[in-house]
Amino acid sequence: NDKGLSARSPDSQYDIKLRGTAQADARFFLDDDAAPQNDTFLWRRIRPSLEGSLGPLVAFRLTPEFAGDGTTIVDAYVDVKFDPAATLRVGKVKGPIGLERLQSASGIAFVERGFPTELAPNRDIGAQLQGDLAKASVNYTVGVYNGAPDGRDSSTTNPDDDFELAARVFFEPFKNAANAWSGLGFGMAASSGDKRGSGNNVLPRYRTPGQLQFFNYRGAVLADGKHTRWSPQAYYYRNAFGLLAEYIESEQELLLPGDGDGGGTRAELANSAWQLAGSWVLTGEDASFRGVVKPDNPFGFGDGGWGAFEVAARYGELDIDTAAFPVFADPATAAARAASWGLGLNWYPSSNLKLVLNHTRTRFDGGAADGADRDDEKTVFTRVQVAF
Amino acid sequence: NDKGLSARSPDSQYDIKLRGTAQADARFFLDDDAAPQNDTFLWRRIRPSLEGSLGPLVAFRLTPEFAGDGTTIVDAYVDVKFDPAATLRVGKVKGPIGLERLQSASGIAFVERGFPTELAPNRDIGAQLQGDLAKASVNYTVGVYNGAPDGRDSSTTNPDDDFELAARVFFEPFKNAANAWSGLGFGMAASSGDKRGSGNNVLPRYRTPGQLQFFNYRGAVLADGKHTRWSPQAYYYRNAFGLLAEYIESEQELLLPGDGDGGGTRAELANSAWQLAGSWVLTGEDASFRGVVKPDNPFGFGDGGWGAFEVAARYGELDIDTAAFPVFADPATAAARAASWGLGLNWYPSSNLKLVLNHTRTRFDGGAADGADRDDEKTVFTRVQVAF
Amino acid sequence: NDKGLSARSPDSQYDIKLRGTAQADARFFLDDDAAPQNDTFLWRRIRPSLEGSLGPLVAFRLTPEFAGDGTTIVDAYVDVKFDPAATLRVGKVKGPIGLERLQSASGIAFVERGFPTELAPNRDIGAQLQGDLAKASVNYTVGVYNGAPDGRDSSTTNPDDDFELAARVFFEPFKNAANAWSGLGFGMAASSGDKRGSGNNVLPRYRTPGQLQFFNYRGAVLADGKHTRWSPQAYYYRNAFGLLAEYIESEQELLLPGDGDGGGTRAELANSAWQLAGSWVLTGEDASFRGVVKPDNPFGFGDGGWGAFEVAARYGELDIDTAAFPVFADPATAAARAASWGLGLNWYPSSNLKLVLNHTRTRFDGGAADGADRDDEKTVFTRVQVAF
Repeated sequence: NDKGLSARSPDSQYDIKLRGTAQADARFFLDDDAAPQNDTFLWRRIRPSLEGSLGPLVAFRLTPEFAGDGTTIVDAYVDVKFDPAATLRVGKVKGPIGLERLQSASGIAFVERGFPTELAPNRDIGAQLQGDLAKASVNYTVGVYNGAPDGRDSSTTNPDDDFELAARVFFEPFKNAANAWSGLGFGMAASSGDKRGSGNNVLPRYRTPGQLQFFNYRGAVLADGKHTRWSPQAYYYRNAFGLLAEYIESEQELLLPGDGDGGGTRAELANSAWQLAGSWVLTGEDASFRGVVKPDNPFGFGDGGWGAFEVAARYGELDIDTAAFPVFADPATAAARAASWGLGLNWYPSSNLKLVLNHTRTRFDGGAADGADRDDEKTVFTRVQVAF
Repeated sequence: NDKGLSARSPDSQYDIKLRGTAQADARFFLDDDAAPQNDTFLWRRIRPSLEGSLGPLVAFRLTPEFAGDGTTIVDAYVDVKFDPAATLRVGKVKGPIGLERLQSASGIAFVERGFPTELAPNRDIGAQLQGDLAKASVNYTVGVYNGAPDGRDSSTTNPDDDFELAARVFFEPFKNAANAWSGLGFGMAASSGDKRGSGNNVLPRYRTPGQLQFFNYRGAVLADGKHTRWSPQAYYYRNAFGLLAEYIESEQELLLPGDGDGGGTRAELANSAWQLAGSWVLTGEDASFRGVVKPDNPFGFGDGGWGAFEVAARYGELDIDTAAFPVFADPATAAARAASWGLGLNWYPSSNLKLVLNHTRTRFDGGAADGADRDDEKTVFTRVQVAF
Repeated sequence: NDKGLSARSPDSQYDIKLRGTAQADARFFLDDDAAPQNDTFLWRRIRPSLEGSLGPLVAFRLTPEFAGDGTTIVDAYVDVKFDPAATLRVGKVKGPIGLERLQSASGIAFVERGFPTELAPNRDIGAQLQGDLAKASVNYTVGVYNGAPDGRDSSTTNPDDDFELAARVFFEPFKNAANAWSGLGFGMAASSGDKRGSGNNVLPRYRTPGQLQFFNYRGAVLADGKHTRWSPQAYYYRNAFGLLAEYIESEQELLLPGDGDGGGTRAELANSAWQLAGSWVLTGEDASFRGVVKPDNPFGFGDGGWGAFEVAARYGELDIDTAAFPVFADPATAAARAASWGLGLNWYPSSNLKLVLNHTRTRFDGGAADGADRDDEKTVFTRVQVAF
């Protein structure tokens, strides 16, 4: 069928599937004559996925990423299903912090996720207990991980000797009711752990919706102590309409070492981001956290179907702690604030094909020489996505 | 069956297959005492492939390469099949320039492709429209790509801000006739686009049939302007006999920057290559552009079959623009011309197994110190190939 | 079923399977305050595997490794099955030297293999003839390879111009008898070949059971001549009990070049390692070289099964040639001897899931500044393994 190559034992207890998501993008930067960005075609994601159930106790998922210069693992985890309310998941997983982060890459409304995802761990390696309670109206995750920098993956082994704890609880109180609020979900996530060291495996580099870095710390800065994040988050889906809102704050103890063996400068800096994103399926299919799953009238040549169309809009901001400048970050290259809005049009000719057209504009405070603001970023991103 | 692991929906509209090609080679260099090359076993290609159709509109192919130091993507594309005469293909694809380049790696007559392929893009990332016209007697491709250097892949994103256009038209006028010319095909391909920058992602390095580099530009040389290629090409297959001929010329504007901010030296250099390759299936099976597909009498222990045998021979040359020396290339390390002939014997014990034995000899003009010629290259390459 | 996604032709001659082994580990180092090691979660192995038979003549196996920073090939070989007593295997294979090395990674009794495996080639690239003789009571392998350094893979091409020969013969004289000795096997393996050059592709670096390097040669040391290994080896399995013993000696001609063009210092150094490892399946299932294959009473929630439990213990040593110090190795960083014991508990809740808890302690002679001994290594390693 449309969902991959699979084999299932007669009693359905053994079930192994080969699936995939691939996203071919074209990126264009407008009005970038002053500081040209390379317009490009690229494979954004090429993710075949091997997943399955091995008896009632064990399930697994393995998703490599073939886009980019080398091949890496995106998701690789094993589930030990002691109980519907308590599954132990070990391996490389999405950290539980960000709401849009937890959306499937094939289901997000825009070509690239918004600012809050830049402050959430991308994937982390560890062990978590998760499950549904109260007839699935409450979902929880609590885990211990190596610890990932904001917006990126953890490295393959723990870069320091410290672990990170993270947890999330999410409520869908009317999930099982057939009323106007059945598509409402809200929750809170948080992480806490010590991080030590410097470099890209520990400290964050924040990117624009155009995927260009606009903030990083000075090279000599060290993470040296507690790193905490917290994130209130909510979504609401009703018929063809969807709304997603989230806020993430990430606070880290930093040290800029002194010249001798003296103390250097310490600070505890809190960066934050939020976004509000809405979408509307013009052709009337249901919106959901999983994206538009199936068009009612798939595109065809004789029978006149045109698939499903969806429009989307969002606004978001990312704010750097003002105490970061100028000691921990260079105001001439690192912006203190970015604010971005975006518009999108999604066409779903069939349940396997999605075509995306996005326009974003992002403004900055600082980030250029002599106290000037970094030039606005204007992008047109397109995507051809195949998922099965 | 012999063509991989597959699943097909009852109506045949969904069809997903897992296939593969693997080539284990042994390479020996003869008479190389003066400048020894390492004789070696190596995996030349390890390419499992996931491909399929997802309904009448969408098809895809994903082929990673596991041979070599890391894993990369060879082919990764999505087809949107608007019409038999017009398929939109996006992703990482074979550029349309070289004829032997377009042959499958499992179907080429020799262990390594000939000189013209060194001047064609290997794989490029972009979008192309392709299709068959006039009862498949005309095949066309026209596309826009990031732009790849001669003989190599494009990098994962565009290394400059310029795209490349390429097109190919190929005629098989008697394809549907049952006469002596039904196996004749000929055509023309060309590309044009600006390339800027230096290094291996932009400028070519040409290799011998033994896969050793014999030409590159000086390190300071920049691509700085128009890059055009054109290639007349033809093949002819009749019964057990096959013949393939192609010529490629690649012309690039180059700049060797001056010391100060002065102009430096500019040139527009045209390198070219051609080859003529013939093959003959001794056991009488049909030759084709796809290689010998299936032996009539597969190898077996009791029933006396021996599979199919094929002999092949070729001659080719690669000529560097004489204006390249000595400003843009160092005559002591870069040869001005290479000429090579090769002989091959292919044994197909079954439709999945192919054993290859090749001998090549290559002579050079220049490429050694004091105006001398680089030593002749004499190789014996063998291959064990499994494809399914 | 529980053994992967597969497709088989009606006559069983074509059979392609997708299988996998994944191991998620957690590593803790105890009492390491003086020289802290990073405790970490990590994916130790992520190995999907594509294997199959293509008619009576050809079989293949392709196993990539997705754990770690990049993706590499673990096993990739083609079998040409001329006869049960003579299969030609070409590609990247386990070298024939080490006994525990030849155990499947999913079947080893401990989280990490013992010291002898540090002296055996890991995987090598080449061609070998192998088969069973005398009703499978004798198994032999003889091959030619690029040559791999002790304990590691060979690089993708031969790093020098020399090949390595290796062979192994293994006897199970009572294999087909139903007596107390039917599970006895013993044999001898050896390799010989010239190795030349320096660096990690040629010279060994030995690791502890905690996977930390405790020995390497000085950076200027070259392999410069003959490298030989030999290894007597045996196992004995009877009902729930298993015992494995092996010894490996690895001897290499080394050169420390002199300052001028003078001779430098030469030596022929022999390092050796041995181990004795025993295991006992508490729940009574049969032990075997392939591990505990299937618990009699899989873990379940209502029916009270608890799976299989196994305990294991081992002792091993690795001895560096005393003539290595101080000329070829630095006694302040390279230990002259390591001795380690380990205890393990394995739980097999189902045929696909294995949970491992190991404790090891390792003591060193030398390897610290001022002639002191490197600190003892104490580890607790755990593993969640899924295999299908």
